[in-house]
Amino acid sequence: MVHAAGIFVHAQALCESEQVGEGTRIWAFAHVMKGAVVGHDCNIGDHAFLEAGARIGDRVTIKNQATVWEGVEIEDDVFVGPAVSFTNDICPRSARMKLPTVAKRYGQAKEWLVRTTVEKGASLGACCVILPGIRIGAYATVAAGAVVTRNVPAHALVVGVPARRRAWVCGCGLRLVEIENAFWHCPQCNSSFCERLAGKCISLIRSS
Amino acid sequence: MVHAAGIFVHAQALCESEQVGEGTRIWAFAHVMKGAVVGHDCNIGDHAFLEAGARIGDRVTIKNQATVWEGVEIEDDVFVGPAVSFTNDICPRSARMKLPTVAKRYGQAKEWLVRTTVEKGASLGACCVILPGIRIGAYATVAAGAVVTRNVPAHALVVGVPARRRAWVCGCGLRLVEIENAFWHCPQCNSSFCERLAGKCISLIRSS
Amino acid sequence: MVHAAGIFVHAQALCESEQVGEGTRIWAFAHVMKGAVVGHDCNIGDHAFLEAGARIGDRVTIKNQATVWEGVEIEDDVFVGPAVSFTNDICPRSARMKLPTVAKRYGQAKEWLVRTTVEKGASLGACCVILPGIRIGAYATVAAGAVVTRNVPAHALVVGVPARRRAWVCGCGLRLVEIENAFWHCPQCNSSFCERLAGKCISLIRSS
Repeated sequence: MVHAAGIFVHAQALCESEQVGEGTRIWAFAHVMKGAVVGHDCNIGDHAFLEAGARIGDRVTIKNQATVWEGVEIEDDVFVGPAVSFTNDICPRSARMKLPTVAKRYGQAKEWLVRTTVEKGASLGACCVILPGIRIGAYATVAAGAVVTRNVPAHALVVGVPARRRAWVCGCGLRLVEIENAFWHCPQCNSSFCERLAGKCISLIRSS
Repeated sequence: MVHAAGIFVHAQALCESEQVGEGTRIWAFAHVMKGAVVGHDCNIGDHAFLEAGARIGDRVTIKNQATVWEGVEIEDDVFVGPAVSFTNDICPRSARMKLPTVAKRYGQAKEWLVRTTVEKGASLGACCVILPGIRIGAYATVAAGAVVTRNVPAHALVVGVPARRRAWVCGCGLRLVEIENAFWHCPQCNSSFCERLAGKCISLIRSS
Repeated sequence: MVHAAGIFVHAQALCESEQVGEGTRIWAFAHVMKGAVVGHDCNIGDHAFLEAGARIGDRVTIKNQATVWEGVEIEDDVFVGPAVSFTNDICPRSARMKLPTVAKRYGQAKEWLVRTTVEKGASLGACCVILPGIRIGAYATVAAGAVVTRNVPAHALVVGVPARRRAWVCGCGLRLVEIENAFWHCPQCNSSFCERLAGKCISLIRSS
């Protein structure tokens, strides 16, 4: 297959999409399906799989064996670690099963499809699993091996099964240090943040 | 390799088995070894691996990167999610190690081999892990990211590490609703079920 | 590519390394990068990935889909189960992100790189995740699906998320039996071991 100038597709990769941005590289045994949208300057590792309907922003890293399905939107600057599993069906069954309600569910209307968004600059650690319908906030980090069953606030570090917030992280990825109650600082970037409580939810706002 | 009429094997897939049923499709970078048995109308996703000795029924969905080993039997209508890991050895060592007891264990008699069965219509969520020697009951659902260390009753939904029962699910996959004590109903199929206690084990029986 | 006599590389595998030992076999869709070092008599399963800078000893089993990164050293006789994920970056971000501190971190000096060692004869179960900077002791076993966040003592069996010690195992892989307080015996090999406490850490020493 002929690709636009400035896109690298390894000889052992399959890229069937015509919507891949300049500077993007696709490595061995990876498969980008027709209908997957990939931004510019991305890196798609070996054995990764991007399904028709997946949407990937610019400067995104998709490490080896990560699978991105229809209904998953990944914003700019995101890191998707090796073997990360997204999901898009809350109660999967084999679509081939001969049960009328199952046949209907997997029919044209795609009743089963539940969408997931990973916001700008977030990182998903190796082999983590993202349940369907989740929103991962900007610059959040999901620890390796975590199973994410709830939305993740921006700048949160979540760990474990099910994933719970353990710390706050900076846009650069480092853990923030609490300098006074509810005020946080990045020792690498010198950025400052403060916590805000809305209902039962806590979030982090950049203050400088 | 030439395949029987009615079997689709992607140009980048490897299908060495001669025991694949009609209507089955095998996608890119998947590998079905000689000696793996696959029924009809199955779908085997990209990068999946079916080892010699694996047995797969009819209308089974094997999603991307799932690995099915010798000793694993998957009945009809099962959904095996992406990156699902089966296992067949309770105390693995590198078979090449120079230790007489290890050499014996990995010898002709296959002392190490422990079998697993997934019964009809069950679903295994993304990236779940099934320990050796497990039986997953009919129409059960294993949540994404769960690690299954005990048998799973029919119609159970199990979640977490180690996996524990959280709810009951219908054949169609939906969670059942308790309409009176120990009586359950599917809002989608209108099927009814009742709980039965045998020793310490609880199971679900279809009543209509 | 031409390989040294005595190395088997499947027609669908990629082996770019010139540092692979005799008797090693590399299976379909696996990728061994230039700069990865692999010992003799290893077995590298389908869809496995060994990055430049990975170091693998002799008689090692690398099962399907395992990914071994730069900074990971695997000693002789180790079993790396299917879909095992190593990691080498404690706070990953997409290296393409336009943030000066991130650009510096992913620059020439490789500030992000954290090393991991798996000592002789250890086993890593299916789909387990090893956090960066970990040392897995000789003949230890990590259970399938575990997430390892701390060093693992020699001969320990660790399970769960995060992984904790559940038992002691012999070099041959079997669980040891406590024959008197702090003295352990292998029913298969007849080896004996005793516990030793150093500070807060407990370890196992072979006594016969």
